Amino acid sequence: MTSSVYKVQVQWGDCDPARIVYYPNYFRWFDAATRHLFECNGLFWDAMSREHGSRGFPLVDARASFRRPARFGDVLEIATSLKRWGTRSFELEHVILVAGAVAVEGSETRIWGVDDPAVPEGLKAGRIPDAIKARMPAVAA
Amino acid sequence: MTSSVYKVQVQWGDCDPARIVYYPNYFRWFDAATRHLFECNGLFWDAMSREHGSRGFPLVDARASFRRPARFGDVLEIATSLKRWGTRSFELEHVILVAGAVAVEGSETRIWGVDDPAVPEGLKAGRIPDAIKARMPAVAA
Amino acid sequence: MTSSVYKVQVQWGDCDPARIVYYPNYFRWFDAATRHLFECNGLFWDAMSREHGSRGFPLVDARASFRRPARFGDVLEIATSLKRWGTRSFELEHVILVAGAVAVEGSETRIWGVDDPAVPEGLKAGRIPDAIKARMPAVAA
Amino acid sequence: MTSSVYKVQVQWGDCDPARIVYYPNYFRWFDAATRHLFECNGLFWDAMSREHGSRGFPLVDARASFRRPARFGDVLEIATSLKRWGTRSFELEHVILVAGAVAVEGSETRIWGVDDPAVPEGLKAGRIPDAIKARMPAVAA
Repeated sequence: MTSSVYKVQVQWGDCDPARIVYYPNYFRWFDAATRHLFECNGLFWDAMSREHGSRGFPLVDARASFRRPARFGDVLEIATSLKRWGTRSFELEHVILVAGAVAVEGSETRIWGVDDPAVPEGLKAGRIPDAIKARMPAVAA
Repeated sequence: MTSSVYKVQVQWGDCDPARIVYYPNYFRWFDAATRHLFECNGLFWDAMSREHGSRGFPLVDARASFRRPARFGDVLEIATSLKRWGTRSFELEHVILVAGAVAVEGSETRIWGVDDPAVPEGLKAGRIPDAIKARMPAVAA
Repeated sequence: MTSSVYKVQVQWGDCDPARIVYYPNYFRWFDAATRHLFECNGLFWDAMSREHGSRGFPLVDARASFRRPARFGDVLEIATSLKRWGTRSFELEHVILVAGAVAVEGSETRIWGVDDPAVPEGLKAGRIPDAIKARMPAVAA
Repeated sequence: MTSSVYKVQVQWGDCDPARIVYYPNYFRWFDAATRHLFECNGLFWDAMSREHGSRGFPLVDARASFRRPARFGDVLEIATSLKRWGTRSFELEHVILVAGAVAVEGSETRIWGVDDPAVPEGLKAGRIPDAIKARMPAVAA
C-alpha cells in the first residue's frame, strides 16, 4: 500500500487567537501521517530500528501550501503517499481534506537515519534496505 | 530595516527521541521571527489591528530545508528578511544559524488578514496599507 | 454520563531525548479529554457559546502525578470524570492508563468563562447555567 | 544561588482562541525555568550526564494555580526556587509574574533519572550526588 489516510481532530490548543489552526501543527500532523503510512505497511519504528538499524527519519525538506483554514473541532483527513524512494532518502506527499475540500497540500523529504560513529549521538543518512522498499513500493510515476 | 535577527535557545522539549529538534518547531520559530522583524520596525500586532484592521497574517505557503540538525541547548540565530510586498500578501525569508553555520533555510508567504464579513469569524486577504509598506521596505531585488 | 474515555496515541514529537513523553503534553491531553467528556454529553463548544455565552473554560488549577512513563507508540486511555459543579467553576479528574496500568493521575479546576465587558477581550467567571449541569451531573460524592 | 529568574515572551501560537495562553505551555516554561536555575549554578545537562550519569529529570508531580491570564506579547518573569533536595528526588517552586503581578504559581517534583539496566532505554530514580547538592543548596526552611 503506497497511500494511507490518517485522521486527526483539531483541538482547542491547536488554534491561535485568529481562531484557525496555528500552522506549525500541520507539520506535526504530516509527521504522524508519515508514521501511519509506514505502520499501515507493517513497518514499525521499533522493529525497523532493531532489524535495520534505523534511528529516525530526519527531514531534509518540508513544505506546505495552505488553501483554506481549519478550525477547532474540524476533522482532518490526511492522505499520504510515498512518492519516491532514493538511495538514502525518500519523499512523501500529503493532502489534507476538511469536509471533502483540500485545506493543505504538502511534502516531506526525509533521510533514512542511522548512527554516525564519527559523532557522539550523531545521525547520518544510511542506505535504505531493499526489504523496506519492497514492503512499501512508491507511487508509479 | 528589512532584516532582523531573532535568537532562541533549543529547549529539552523541543527535541525528539533522536535527540535533535523536532522539525515542526522550526516553523514556530519562523513565526516568532516574523513577528520580531515587524516589531523591530515599530509594527506591533495590537497597533496594526487597531489602526489598520489586521487580524493576523495567515500562511499561504511555508517551506524549509534542513542542512544540519540542532540539539538541546543550541542557540539559534534566525535572520529574517522581508523579500516582497504584494498587494495582499508578502514573503519572508529565514536563515537559521547555529554557531555560525547554516542549519535551516526557509520561507513563508502570508496574507494580510482582515475580517471577512461574509463568514462569522472569517478572515480574508485584505489590501496591505501603504503606510505599512513604507515603514518596512522589502529587500531590493 | 459523568465519565468518558478518550484515547490518544503517543507520537514521536510528543517524546523528548529521554525517550519518554515530555510532560506538558499530558496537560494537552487532559484538555482534549475534558472537551471529549462534554461532547459525549452532547455539549459542544460552539453550541454552548451560542446558547449560553461561554467563551472557553480557563484553568484555575491543574495538577498531575506521574506514576510511570509513556513512550512513543503507546496508546493512552484517559478516563475523565466530572467531580464537582460549583457556582462558577467545576472540577475534573483524569486517570491515564497505558496497557491497563495507571501512568498519570491528575485534575483540572476550570471556570465557566464569559465576556468581561470591563476589559477588551476580557474573560471572567460566569454563573454556570442549570441546563448545563442537568445535562452532565457530577459524580456522586 | 537557589533562585533564578527566567524570562520568556508569549508568542502568538502560545495562545488559544480565547486569546489567552493555552495552559499546558506554562509547564513547558516551568521546565525551561528549571533548566535555567541549574545552569545559573553552573550545572549543565551534558556535563551532569557525563560526570554523574544523569539521563534527565522526569516528573513525579506537577501543579499550577492560575491567578490571571497572560496574553500574546506579555513578558513572563519566572522566579524559580529549589525548595528541597531528597535522596532521589527534588522539588522546585515557580512563580510567574506579568508586569509585576502574579499570574501563575506552581511546583514540580522530579527524580534524578539514571539508566535502569533492567529495562531497555529505561530510567529509574538514582541517588542525587552530594556534589550536585553542594553546588545548589535548597532554600532554607
